[in-house]
Amino acid sequence: MKLCRFDRDRLGLVDGDRVRDVTAALDALPSYRYPLPEHDVLLANLDIVRARVEQVAPAAAGVPLDSVVLRSPVANPGKIIAAPVNYQTHLDEARANADIHHNNPLHTLTIQTAGLFLKATSSLAGPGDGIAIRWPDRRTDPEVELVIVVGRQGTRIGRDRAMDHVAGYTIGLDVTTRGTEDRSFRKSSDSYSIVGPWLVTADELPDPGALDLSLSINGEQKQASNTRHLIVDVAGLVEMASSFYTLYPGDVIFTGTPEGVSPIQAGDRVVASVAGIGTLKVAVR
Amino acid sequence: MKLCRFDRDRLGLVDGDRVRDVTAALDALPSYRYPLPEHDVLLANLDIVRARVEQVAPAAAGVPLDSVVLRSPVANPGKIIAAPVNYQTHLDEARANADIHHNNPLHTLTIQTAGLFLKATSSLAGPGDGIAIRWPDRRTDPEVELVIVVGRQGTRIGRDRAMDHVAGYTIGLDVTTRGTEDRSFRKSSDSYSIVGPWLVTADELPDPGALDLSLSINGEQKQASNTRHLIVDVAGLVEMASSFYTLYPGDVIFTGTPEGVSPIQAGDRVVASVAGIGTLKVAVR
Repeated sequence: MKLCRFDRDRLGLVDGDRVRDVTAALDALPSYRYPLPEHDVLLANLDIVRARVEQVAPAAAGVPLDSVVLRSPVANPGKIIAAPVNYQTHLDEARANADIHHNNPLHTLTIQTAGLFLKATSSLAGPGDGIAIRWPDRRTDPEVELVIVVGRQGTRIGRDRAMDHVAGYTIGLDVTTRGTEDRSFRKSSDSYSIVGPWLVTADELPDPGALDLSLSINGEQKQASNTRHLIVDVAGLVEMASSFYTLYPGDVIFTGTPEGVSPIQAGDRVVASVAGIGTLKVAVR
Repeated sequence: MKLCRFDRDRLGLVDGDRVRDVTAALDALPSYRYPLPEHDVLLANLDIVRARVEQVAPAAAGVPLDSVVLRSPVANPGKIIAAPVNYQTHLDEARANADIHHNNPLHTLTIQTAGLFLKATSSLAGPGDGIAIRWPDRRTDPEVELVIVVGRQGTRIGRDRAMDHVAGYTIGLDVTTRGTEDRSFRKSSDSYSIVGPWLVTADELPDPGALDLSLSINGEQKQASNTRHLIVDVAGLVEMASSFYTLYPGDVIFTGTPEGVSPIQAGDRVVASVAGIGTLKVAVR
Protein backbone atom coordinates (compact mmCIF):
# COMPACT_ATOMS: atom_id res chain seq x y z
CA MET A 1 0.00 0.00 0.00
CA LYS A 2 1.19 3.50 -0.84
CA LEU A 3 -0.10 6.09 1.64
CA CYS A 4 0.45 9.80 1.24
CA ARG A 5 -0.52 12.97 3.05
CA PHE A 6 -1.56 15.86 0.85
CA ASP A 7 -2.98 19.37 0.80
CA ARG A 8 -4.24 20.29 4.26
CA ASP A 9 -3.99 17.14 6.42
CA ARG A 10 -5.64 14.83 3.85
CA LEU A 11 -4.74 11.14 3.81
CA GLY A 12 -4.37 9.59 0.36
CA LEU A 13 -4.13 6.13 -1.17
CA VAL A 14 -1.83 6.28 -4.19
CA ASP A 15 -3.08 4.28 -7.15
CA GLY A 16 -0.89 4.72 -10.24
CA ASP A 17 -0.88 8.40 -11.13
CA ARG A 18 -3.96 9.14 -9.05
CA VAL A 19 -4.64 9.56 -5.36
CA ARG A 20 -7.85 8.59 -3.55
CA ASP A 21 -8.84 10.76 -0.59
CA VAL A 22 -9.15 8.30 2.29
CA THR A 23 -9.03 10.88 5.09
CA ALA A 24 -12.16 9.27 6.57
CA ALA A 25 -9.96 6.33 7.64
CA LEU A 26 -8.34 8.61 10.24
CA ASP A 27 -11.55 8.32 12.26
CA ALA A 28 -10.03 5.03 13.44
CA LEU A 29 -7.56 7.05 15.53
CA PRO A 30 -8.64 8.32 18.96
CA SER A 31 -8.22 11.83 20.27
CA TYR A 32 -5.49 12.60 22.78
CA ARG A 33 -4.98 14.89 25.75
CA TYR A 34 -1.84 16.29 27.38
CA PRO A 35 0.71 14.78 27.75
CA LEU A 36 0.56 13.72 24.12
CA PRO A 37 2.05 10.46 22.81
CA GLU A 38 5.73 10.74 21.88
CA HIS A 39 5.31 8.51 18.82
CA ASP A 40 3.41 8.91 15.56
CA VAL A 41 -0.09 7.66 16.32
CA LEU A 42 -0.86 6.69 12.72
CA LEU A 43 2.23 4.48 12.48
CA ALA A 44 1.44 3.04 15.92
CA ASN A 45 -1.99 2.04 14.60
CA LEU A 46 -1.06 1.30 11.00
CA ASP A 47 -2.87 -2.05 10.80
CA ILE A 48 -6.14 -0.48 11.95
CA VAL A 49 -5.77 2.48 9.59
CA ARG A 50 -4.88 0.21 6.64
CA ALA A 51 -8.01 -1.86 7.21
CA ARG A 52 -10.13 1.30 7.28
CA VAL A 53 -8.39 2.64 4.16
CA GLU A 54 -9.35 -0.54 2.31
CA GLN A 55 -12.93 -0.10 3.43
CA VAL A 56 -13.30 3.52 2.34
CA ALA A 57 -11.06 3.52 -0.76
CA PRO A 58 -13.54 2.08 -3.30
CA ALA A 59 -15.97 4.94 -2.76
CA ALA A 60 -13.25 7.61 -2.35
CA ALA A 61 -12.82 10.39 -4.89
CA GLY A 62 -9.68 10.09 -6.99
CA VAL A 63 -7.72 13.02 -8.39
CA PRO A 64 -4.48 13.18 -10.39
CA LEU A 65 -1.38 13.12 -8.19
CA ASP A 66 -0.11 16.14 -10.11
CA SER A 67 -3.02 18.20 -8.79
CA VAL A 68 -2.23 17.84 -5.08
CA VAL A 69 0.47 19.21 -2.78
CA LEU A 70 2.34 16.29 -1.23
CA ARG A 71 3.32 16.57 2.45
CA SER A 72 5.56 14.32 4.53
CA PRO A 73 3.83 10.91 4.75
CA VAL A 74 4.93 10.69 8.38
CA ALA A 75 3.37 13.57 10.32
CA ASN A 76 4.86 13.22 13.80
CA PRO A 77 8.20 11.39 13.83
CA GLY A 78 9.62 11.32 17.34
CA LYS A 79 13.13 11.11 15.93
CA ILE A 80 14.69 11.81 12.54
CA ILE A 81 17.78 9.62 12.61
CA ALA A 82 20.40 9.70 9.85
CA ALA A 83 23.47 7.77 8.77
CA PRO A 84 26.41 10.07 8.10
CA VAL A 85 28.61 8.19 5.62
CA ASN A 86 27.00 4.95 4.56
CA TYR A 87 28.23 4.58 0.98
CA GLN A 88 31.98 4.05 0.53
CA THR A 89 31.90 6.20 -2.61
CA HIS A 90 30.47 9.18 -0.69
CA LEU A 91 33.06 8.72 2.04
CA ASP A 92 35.75 8.76 -0.65
CA GLU A 93 34.48 12.01 -2.17
CA ALA A 94 34.06 13.62 1.27
CA ARG A 95 37.64 12.74 2.16
CA ALA A 96 38.89 14.24 -1.13
CA ASN A 97 36.96 17.52 -1.05
CA ALA A 98 37.53 20.25 1.54
CA ASP A 99 34.24 21.89 0.53
CA ILE A 100 32.56 18.83 2.01
CA HIS A 101 34.75 17.87 4.99
CA HIS A 102 35.76 21.40 6.09
CA ASN A 103 38.93 19.97 7.64
CA ASN A 104 36.74 18.30 10.23
CA PRO A 105 37.90 14.71 10.77
CA LEU A 106 34.54 13.70 12.20
CA HIS A 107 33.05 14.30 8.78
CA THR A 108 35.23 11.60 7.28
CA LEU A 109 35.06 8.86 9.91
CA THR A 110 33.49 5.53 9.02
CA ILE A 111 29.90 5.03 10.13
CA GLN A 112 31.00 2.41 12.66
CA THR A 113 33.13 5.07 14.38
CA ALA A 114 30.87 8.07 13.84
CA GLY A 115 27.58 6.38 14.72
CA LEU A 116 24.32 7.96 13.64
CA PHE A 117 23.07 11.53 14.12
CA LEU A 118 19.79 13.38 14.60
CA LYS A 119 17.95 15.97 12.57
CA ALA A 120 15.39 18.27 14.21
CA THR A 121 11.81 17.11 13.71
CA SER A 122 11.00 20.77 13.01
CA SER A 123 13.04 20.38 9.79
CA LEU A 124 10.49 17.88 8.43
CA ALA A 125 8.73 18.85 5.20
CA GLY A 126 7.07 17.20 2.25
CA PRO A 127 8.05 17.53 -1.40
CA GLY A 128 5.22 19.99 -2.00
CA ASP A 129 6.49 22.24 0.78
CA GLY A 130 9.78 22.82 -1.05
CA ILE A 131 13.21 23.64 0.31
CA ALA A 132 13.80 27.13 1.72
CA ILE A 133 17.55 27.83 1.62
CA ARG A 134 18.48 29.14 5.08
CA TRP A 135 22.00 30.38 4.34
CA PRO A 136 22.17 31.55 0.71
CA ASP A 137 25.89 32.37 1.01
CA ARG A 138 26.85 28.85 2.12
CA ARG A 139 26.96 25.65 0.10
CA THR A 140 23.72 23.67 0.52
CA ASP A 141 23.31 20.12 -0.86
CA PRO A 142 20.19 17.93 -1.06
CA GLU A 143 21.30 14.31 -0.46
CA VAL A 144 19.02 11.55 -1.75
CA GLU A 145 18.48 8.63 0.63
CA LEU A 146 16.29 5.61 1.18
CA VAL A 147 14.31 6.27 4.38
CA ILE A 148 13.16 3.59 6.81
CA VAL A 149 9.90 4.21 8.70
CA VAL A 150 9.72 2.42 12.06
CA GLY A 151 6.45 0.66 12.83
CA ARG A 152 7.04 -1.02 16.15
CA GLN A 153 8.65 0.07 19.41
CA GLY A 154 11.87 -1.67 20.35
CA THR A 155 15.26 -1.31 21.93
CA ARG A 156 18.45 -3.38 21.53
CA ILE A 157 16.84 -5.00 18.48
CA GLY A 158 18.93 -7.82 17.08
CA ARG A 159 19.62 -8.00 13.37
CA ASP A 160 17.46 -11.12 13.06
CA ARG A 161 14.38 -9.27 14.34
CA ALA A 162 15.12 -5.87 12.83
CA MET A 163 12.82 -6.13 9.81
CA ASP A 164 9.83 -6.83 12.09
CA HIS A 165 10.19 -3.24 13.30
CA VAL A 166 10.05 -1.68 9.82
CA ALA A 167 6.62 -0.39 8.72
CA GLY A 168 7.77 0.76 5.31
CA TYR A 169 9.95 3.04 3.26
CA THR A 170 9.98 6.44 1.65
CA ILE A 171 12.49 8.78 0.01
CA GLY A 172 14.41 11.47 1.86
CA LEU A 173 16.44 14.50 0.98
CA ASP A 174 18.92 15.16 3.77
CA VAL A 175 19.46 18.83 3.00
CA THR A 176 22.85 19.91 4.28
CA THR A 177 24.53 23.23 4.93
CA ARG A 178 28.28 22.60 4.61
CA GLY A 179 30.45 23.97 7.37
CA THR A 180 32.13 23.36 10.69
CA GLU A 181 29.04 23.03 12.88
CA ASP A 182 27.71 19.82 14.37
CA ARG A 183 25.73 17.82 11.81
CA SER A 184 22.61 17.91 13.96
CA PHE A 185 22.73 21.73 13.73
CA ARG A 186 23.73 22.32 10.09
CA LYS A 187 21.22 19.78 8.76
CA SER A 188 18.24 20.84 10.88
CA SER A 189 17.03 24.07 9.33
CA ASP A 190 13.30 24.25 8.57
CA SER A 191 12.48 22.18 5.42
CA TYR A 192 15.90 20.46 5.46
CA SER A 193 14.40 16.99 5.96
CA ILE A 194 12.24 16.38 2.90
CA VAL A 195 10.33 13.10 3.17
CA GLY A 196 8.00 11.64 0.56
CA PRO A 197 6.32 11.33 -1.83
CA TRP A 198 4.52 8.58 0.09
CA LEU A 199 5.00 5.67 2.45
CA VAL A 200 5.35 2.27 0.75
CA THR A 201 4.49 -0.44 3.24
CA ALA A 202 7.19 -3.04 3.81
CA ASP A 203 5.18 -5.86 2.23
CA GLU A 204 5.57 -4.11 -1.14
CA LEU A 205 9.37 -3.82 -0.82
CA PRO A 206 10.61 -7.18 0.45
CA ASP A 207 14.24 -6.40 -0.48
CA PRO A 208 15.24 -2.82 0.42
CA GLY A 209 18.85 -3.80 -0.27
CA ALA A 210 18.63 -3.76 -4.09
CA LEU A 211 17.01 -0.46 -5.02
CA ASP A 212 18.35 1.96 -7.61
CA LEU A 213 18.32 5.54 -6.34
CA SER A 214 19.15 8.77 -8.12
CA LEU A 215 18.93 12.53 -7.90
CA SER A 216 18.94 15.24 -10.53
CA ILE A 217 19.10 19.02 -10.28
CA ASN A 218 17.44 20.99 -13.07
CA GLY A 219 17.31 17.85 -15.19
CA GLU A 220 20.99 16.98 -14.82
CA GLN A 221 21.71 13.71 -13.02
CA LYS A 222 24.04 14.18 -10.03
CA GLN A 223 23.68 11.02 -7.95
CA ALA A 224 22.99 7.44 -9.08
CA SER A 225 23.62 4.30 -7.06
CA ASN A 226 21.89 1.28 -5.56
CA THR A 227 21.10 0.45 -1.95
CA ARG A 228 23.20 -2.71 -2.33
CA HIS A 229 26.18 -0.39 -1.81
CA LEU A 230 25.06 0.61 1.70
CA ILE A 231 27.89 -0.09 4.15
CA VAL A 232 25.37 -0.77 6.94
CA ASP A 233 22.12 -2.11 5.49
CA VAL A 234 18.52 -1.58 6.63
CA ALA A 235 18.56 -4.32 9.26
CA GLY A 236 21.98 -3.16 10.46
CA LEU A 237 20.80 0.44 10.85
CA VAL A 238 17.80 -0.64 12.95
CA GLU A 239 20.17 -2.71 15.09
CA MET A 240 22.71 0.14 15.41
CA ALA A 241 20.13 2.83 16.23
CA SER A 242 18.33 0.70 18.79
CA SER A 243 21.61 -0.21 20.49
CA PHE A 244 21.74 3.41 21.74
CA TYR A 245 18.04 4.26 22.19
CA THR A 246 14.50 3.00 21.93
CA LEU A 247 12.86 3.24 18.52
CA TYR A 248 9.20 4.23 18.38
CA PRO A 249 6.52 3.99 15.68
CA GLY A 250 7.04 6.85 13.26
CA ASP A 251 10.75 7.30 13.91
CA VAL A 252 12.46 7.60 10.53
CA ILE A 253 15.99 6.57 9.61
CA PHE A 254 17.73 8.26 6.68
CA THR A 255 20.05 5.52 5.43
CA GLY A 256 22.81 7.69 3.92
CA THR A 257 23.62 9.13 0.52
CA PRO A 258 25.89 7.92 -2.30
CA GLU A 259 28.50 9.97 -4.14
CA GLY A 260 27.72 12.97 -6.32
CA VAL A 261 26.44 15.39 -3.68
CA SER A 262 25.94 18.77 -5.38
CA PRO A 263 24.84 22.24 -4.34
CA ILE A 264 21.49 23.91 -4.99
CA GLN A 265 20.27 27.47 -5.01
CA ALA A 266 16.93 29.25 -5.09
CA GLY A 267 15.02 28.52 -8.29
CA ASP A 268 16.44 25.01 -8.72
CA ARG A 269 14.29 21.95 -9.19
CA VAL A 270 15.33 18.70 -7.48
CA VAL A 271 14.01 15.29 -8.60
CA ALA A 272 14.88 12.18 -6.61
CA SER A 273 13.85 8.59 -7.28
CA VAL A 274 14.11 5.27 -5.48
CA ALA A 275 13.03 2.17 -7.41
CA GLY A 276 9.90 0.58 -5.97
CA ILE A 277 8.91 3.77 -4.17
CA GLY A 278 8.56 6.58 -6.69
CA THR A 279 9.79 10.03 -7.53
CA LEU A 280 10.06 13.11 -5.35
CA LYS A 281 9.92 16.55 -6.99
CA VAL A 282 10.97 19.54 -4.93
CA ALA A 283 11.30 23.22 -5.73
CA VAL A 284 14.05 25.28 -4.08
CA ARG A 285 13.39 28.83 -2.97
CA MET B 1 5.56 30.00 39.79
CA LYS B 2 7.19 26.58 40.15
CA LEU B 3 5.35 23.89 38.18
CA CYS B 4 6.25 20.22 38.34
CA ARG B 5 4.96 16.99 36.91
CA PHE B 6 4.90 14.06 39.29
CA ASP B 7 3.81 10.46 39.77
CA ARG B 8 1.55 9.43 36.89
CA ASP B 9 0.88 12.55 34.79
CA ARG B 10 0.02 14.78 37.77
CA LEU B 11 0.61 18.52 37.57
CA GLY B 12 1.96 20.13 40.73
CA LEU B 13 2.45 23.60 42.13
CA VAL B 14 5.61 23.66 44.25
CA ASP B 15 5.24 25.61 47.49
CA GLY B 16 8.32 25.36 49.71
CA ASP B 17 8.87 21.70 50.49
CA ARG B 18 5.35 20.72 49.53
CA VAL B 19 3.54 20.21 46.23
CA ARG B 20 -0.13 20.94 45.58
CA ASP B 21 -1.88 18.66 43.07
CA VAL B 22 -3.26 21.07 40.47
CA THR B 23 -3.88 18.47 37.75
CA ALA B 24 -7.40 19.83 37.38
CA ALA B 25 -5.89 22.89 35.69
CA LEU B 26 -5.04 20.71 32.68
CA ASP B 27 -8.74 20.77 31.81
CA ALA B 28 -7.91 24.14 30.25
CA LEU B 29 -6.10 22.26 27.45
CA PRO B 30 -8.15 20.89 24.54
CA SER B 31 -7.95 17.39 23.11
CA TYR B 32 -6.12 16.78 19.85
CA ARG B 33 -6.44 14.50 16.85
CA TYR B 34 -3.90 13.30 14.28
CA PRO B 35 -1.73 14.97 13.11
CA LEU B 36 -0.77 16.06 16.62
CA PRO B 37 0.85 19.42 17.41
CA GLU B 38 4.63 19.41 17.10
CA HIS B 39 5.08 21.63 20.16
CA ASP B 40 4.35 21.15 23.86
CA VAL B 41 0.72 22.14 24.28
CA LEU B 42 1.09 23.11 27.95
CA LEU B 43 3.93 25.53 27.20
CA ALA B 44 1.98 26.87 24.21
CA ASN B 45 -0.90 27.64 26.59
CA LEU B 46 1.09 28.50 29.70
CA ASP B 47 -0.79 31.71 30.48
CA ILE B 48 -4.14 29.91 30.45
CA VAL B 49 -2.83 27.02 32.55
CA ARG B 50 -1.19 29.38 35.07
CA ALA B 51 -4.47 31.22 35.55
CA ARG B 52 -6.26 27.93 36.13
CA VAL B 53 -3.53 26.75 38.53
CA GLU B 54 -4.05 29.89 40.61
CA GLN B 55 -7.78 29.17 40.71
CA VAL B 56 -7.52 25.54 41.82
CA ALA B 57 -4.41 25.76 44.04
CA PRO B 58 -6.01 27.06 47.25
CA ALA B 59 -8.29 24.01 47.48
CA ALA B 60 -5.69 21.53 46.19
CA ALA B 61 -4.27 18.83 48.42
CA GLY B 62 -0.65 19.36 49.39
CA VAL B 63 1.86 16.58 50.04
CA PRO B 64 5.58 16.65 50.90
CA LEU B 65 7.80 16.91 47.82
CA ASP B 66 9.82 14.01 49.18
CA SER B 67 6.79 11.73 48.86
CA VAL B 68 6.30 12.10 45.10
CA VAL B 69 8.20 10.89 42.02
CA LEU B 70 9.27 13.92 39.99
CA ARG B 71 9.04 13.65 36.19
CA SER B 72 10.32 16.03 33.53
CA PRO B 73 8.38 19.30 33.92
CA VAL B 74 8.24 19.56 30.12
CA ALA B 75 6.33 16.57 28.77
CA ASN B 76 6.60 16.98 24.99
CA PRO B 77 9.60 19.04 23.90
CA GLY B 78 9.80 19.16 20.12
CA LYS B 79 13.56 19.61 20.32
CA ILE B 80 16.17 19.06 23.01
CA ILE B 81 18.91 21.46 21.97
CA ALA B 82 22.28 21.58 23.73
CA ALA B 83 25.39 23.73 23.79
CA PRO B 84 28.55 21.64 23.45
CA VAL B 85 31.30 23.71 25.10
CA ASN B 86 29.90 26.84 26.65
CA TYR B 87 32.18 27.33 29.65
CA GLN B 88 35.83 28.11 28.86
CA THR B 89 36.93 26.02 31.84
CA HIS B 90 35.15 22.92 30.45
CA LEU B 91 36.67 23.52 27.03
CA ASP B 92 40.09 23.70 28.70
CA GLU B 93 39.61 20.40 30.50
CA ALA B 94 38.22 18.72 27.39
CA ARG B 95 41.25 19.81 25.38
CA ALA B 96 43.58 18.46 28.09
CA ASN B 97 41.96 15.06 28.60
CA ALA B 98 41.87 12.32 25.93
CA ASP B 99 39.19 10.48 27.91
CA ILE B 100 36.91 13.40 27.08
CA HIS B 101 37.96 14.49 23.59
CA HIS B 102 38.81 11.03 22.19
CA ASN B 103 41.21 12.66 19.71
CA ASN B 104 38.21 14.14 17.97
CA PRO B 105 38.89 17.79 17.14
CA LEU B 106 35.17 18.53 16.85
CA HIS B 107 34.91 17.88 20.58
CA THR B 108 37.27 20.74 21.32
CA LEU B 109 36.04 23.44 18.93
CA THR B 110 34.63 26.65 20.32
CA ILE B 111 30.85 26.89 20.44
CA GLN B 112 30.89 29.57 17.73
CA THR B 113 32.52 27.04 15.38
CA ALA B 114 30.76 23.88 16.59
CA GLY B 115 27.27 25.34 16.83
CA LEU B 116 24.63 23.53 18.89
CA PHE B 117 23.55 19.90 18.81
CA LEU B 118 20.43 17.83 19.39
CA LYS B 119 19.52 15.13 21.88
CA ALA B 120 16.73 12.65 21.13
CA THR B 121 13.43 13.57 22.77
CA SER B 122 13.15 9.87 23.66
CA SER B 123 16.08 10.44 26.04
CA LEU B 124 13.95 12.77 28.20
CA ALA B 125 13.39 11.72 31.81
CA GLY B 126 12.67 13.28 35.15
CA PRO B 127 14.79 13.07 38.30
CA GLY B 128 12.49 10.43 39.74
CA ASP B 129 12.94 8.24 36.67
CA GLY B 130 16.67 7.90 37.32
CA ILE B 131 19.53 7.31 34.91
CA ALA B 132 19.87 3.86 33.36
CA ILE B 133 23.49 3.40 32.23
CA ARG B 134 23.34 2.14 28.65
CA TRP B 135 26.98 1.15 28.19
CA PRO B 136 28.42 0.03 31.56
CA ASP B 137 31.86 -0.53 30.03
CA ARG B 138 32.17 3.03 28.74
CA ARG B 139 32.73 6.24 30.65
CA THR B 140 29.40 7.99 31.33
CA ASP B 141 29.21 11.52 32.81
CA PRO B 142 26.18 13.49 34.03
CA GLU B 143 26.78 17.15 33.15
CA VAL B 144 24.86 19.78 35.13
CA GLU B 145 23.37 22.62 33.09
CA LEU B 146 20.93 25.48 33.32
CA VAL B 147 18.07 24.65 30.92
CA ILE B 148 16.01 27.23 29.02
CA VAL B 149 12.37 26.36 28.27
CA VAL B 150 10.99 28.10 25.19
CA GLY B 151 7.54 29.62 25.54
CA ARG B 152 6.89 31.31 22.23
CA GLN B 153 7.46 30.28 18.61
CA GLY B 154 10.07 32.23 16.70
CA THR B 155 12.78 32.09 14.09
CA ARG B 156 15.77 34.37 13.47
CA ILE B 157 15.13 35.91 16.88
CA GLY B 158 17.37 38.89 17.57
CA ARG B 159 19.20 39.15 20.86
CA ASP B 160 17.05 42.12 21.88
CA ARG B 161 13.85 40.05 21.63
CA ALA B 162 15.27 36.72 22.81
CA MET B 163 14.06 36.87 26.41
CA ASP B 164 10.46 37.34 25.23
CA HIS B 165 10.64 33.75 23.93
CA VAL B 166 11.75 32.23 27.25
CA ALA B 167 8.95 30.73 29.38
CA GLY B 168 11.21 29.68 32.21
CA TYR B 169 14.11 27.61 33.44
CA THR B 170 14.88 24.22 34.90
CA ILE B 171 17.94 22.07 35.63
CA GLY B 172 19.32 19.51 33.21
CA LEU B 173 21.74 16.63 33.35
CA ASP B 174 23.23 16.11 29.90
CA VAL B 175 24.24 12.49 30.40
CA THR B 176 27.09 11.64 28.08
CA THR B 177 28.70 8.43 26.89
CA ARG B 178 32.29 9.33 26.01
CA GLY B 179 33.55 8.07 22.68
CA THR B 180 34.03 8.75 19.00
CA GLU B 181 30.40 8.86 17.92
CA ASP B 182 28.42 11.95 16.99
CA ARG B 183 27.25 13.84 20.07
CA SER B 184 23.62 13.51 19.04
CA PHE B 185 24.06 9.70 19.18
CA ARG B 186 26.21 9.23 22.30
CA LYS B 187 24.10 11.60 24.39
CA SER B 188 20.67 10.33 23.33
CA SER B 189 20.24 7.03 25.17
CA ASP B 190 16.99 6.61 27.09
CA SER B 191 17.10 8.65 30.35
CA TYR B 192 20.20 10.61 29.22
CA SER B 193 18.38 13.96 29.28
CA ILE B 194 17.29 14.44 32.88
CA VAL B 195 15.17 17.58 33.28
CA GLY B 196 13.72 18.92 36.53
CA PRO B 197 12.88 19.13 39.33
CA TRP B 198 10.36 21.73 38.13
CA LEU B 199 9.86 24.65 35.77
CA VAL B 200 10.51 28.06 37.30
CA THR B 201 8.71 30.69 35.25
CA ALA B 202 10.89 33.47 33.87
CA ASP B 203 9.32 36.16 36.05
CA GLU B 204 10.91 34.47 39.11
CA LEU B 205 14.39 34.45 37.56
CA PRO B 206 14.94 37.85 36.00
CA ASP B 207 18.70 37.35 35.69
CA PRO B 208 19.60 33.84 34.49
CA GLY B 209 23.17 35.07 33.97
CA ALA B 210 24.20 35.06 37.63
CA LEU B 211 23.18 31.67 39.02
CA ASP B 212 25.45 29.37 41.00
CA LEU B 213 25.26 25.78 39.77
CA SER B 214 26.85 22.63 41.16
CA LEU B 215 26.83 18.86 40.97
CA SER B 216 27.86 16.20 43.42
CA ILE B 217 28.20 12.43 43.08
CA ASN B 218 27.67 10.39 46.25
CA GLY B 219 28.02 13.54 48.31
CA GLU B 220 31.31 14.65 46.77
CA GLN B 221 31.17 17.93 44.89
CA LYS B 222 32.44 17.60 41.32
CA GLN B 223 31.21 20.70 39.50
CA ALA B 224 30.67 24.23 40.84
CA SER B 225 30.42 27.37 38.75
CA ASN B 226 28.10 30.26 37.94
CA THR B 227 26.14 31.01 34.78
CA ARG B 228 28.01 34.30 34.50
CA HIS B 229 30.81 32.18 33.02
CA LEU B 230 28.68 31.06 30.05
CA ILE B 231 30.52 31.92 26.81
CA VAL B 232 27.19 32.40 25.00
CA ASP B 233 24.50 33.53 27.44
CA VAL B 234 20.78 32.74 27.51
CA ALA B 235 19.78 35.45 25.03
CA GLY B 236 22.70 34.51 22.80
CA LEU B 237 21.70 30.84 22.77
CA VAL B 238 18.13 31.69 21.76
CA GLU B 239 19.54 33.88 19.00
CA MET B 240 22.02 31.22 17.86
CA ALA B 241 19.50 28.35 17.87
CA SER B 242 16.83 30.33 16.05
CA SER B 243 19.31 31.43 13.40
CA PHE B 244 19.26 27.83 12.12
CA TYR B 245 15.70 26.71 12.86
CA THR B 246 12.35 27.73 14.29
CA LEU B 247 11.93 27.42 18.06
CA TYR B 248 8.57 26.19 19.37
CA PRO B 249 6.92 26.27 22.79
CA GLY B 250 8.38 23.47 24.87
CA ASP B 251 11.69 23.28 23.05
CA VAL B 252 14.42 23.13 25.67
CA ILE B 253 17.98 24.42 25.42
CA PHE B 254 20.69 22.89 27.62
CA THR B 255 23.09 25.79 28.07
CA GLY B 256 26.33 23.82 28.57
CA THR B 257 28.30 22.47 31.51
CA PRO B 258 31.27 23.88 33.47
CA GLU B 259 34.47 22.02 34.35
CA GLY B 260 34.63 19.01 36.62
CA VAL B 261 32.74 16.47 34.52
CA SER B 262 33.05 13.09 36.24
CA PRO B 263 31.91 9.54 35.58
CA ILE B 264 29.07 7.66 37.26
CA GLN B 265 28.16 4.02 37.61
CA ALA B 266 25.16 2.02 38.76
CA GLY B 267 24.34 2.67 42.41
CA ASP B 268 25.58 6.25 42.40
CA ARG B 269 23.48 9.17 43.57
CA VAL B 270 23.71 12.46 41.68
CA VAL B 271 22.59 15.76 43.20
CA ALA B 272 22.56 18.93 41.07
CA SER B 273 21.56 22.44 42.08
CA VAL B 274 21.00 25.75 40.33
CA ALA B 275 20.38 28.79 42.54
CA GLY B 276 16.86 30.15 42.22
CA ILE B 277 15.57 26.88 40.78
CA GLY B 278 16.24 24.10 43.26
CA THR B 279 17.91 20.74 43.61
CA LEU B 280 17.67 17.66 41.43
CA LYS B 281 18.30 14.24 42.97
CA VAL B 282 18.83 11.30 40.65
CA ALA B 283 19.64 7.66 41.25
CA VAL B 284 21.85 5.79 38.77
CA ARG B 285 21.12 2.16 37.90
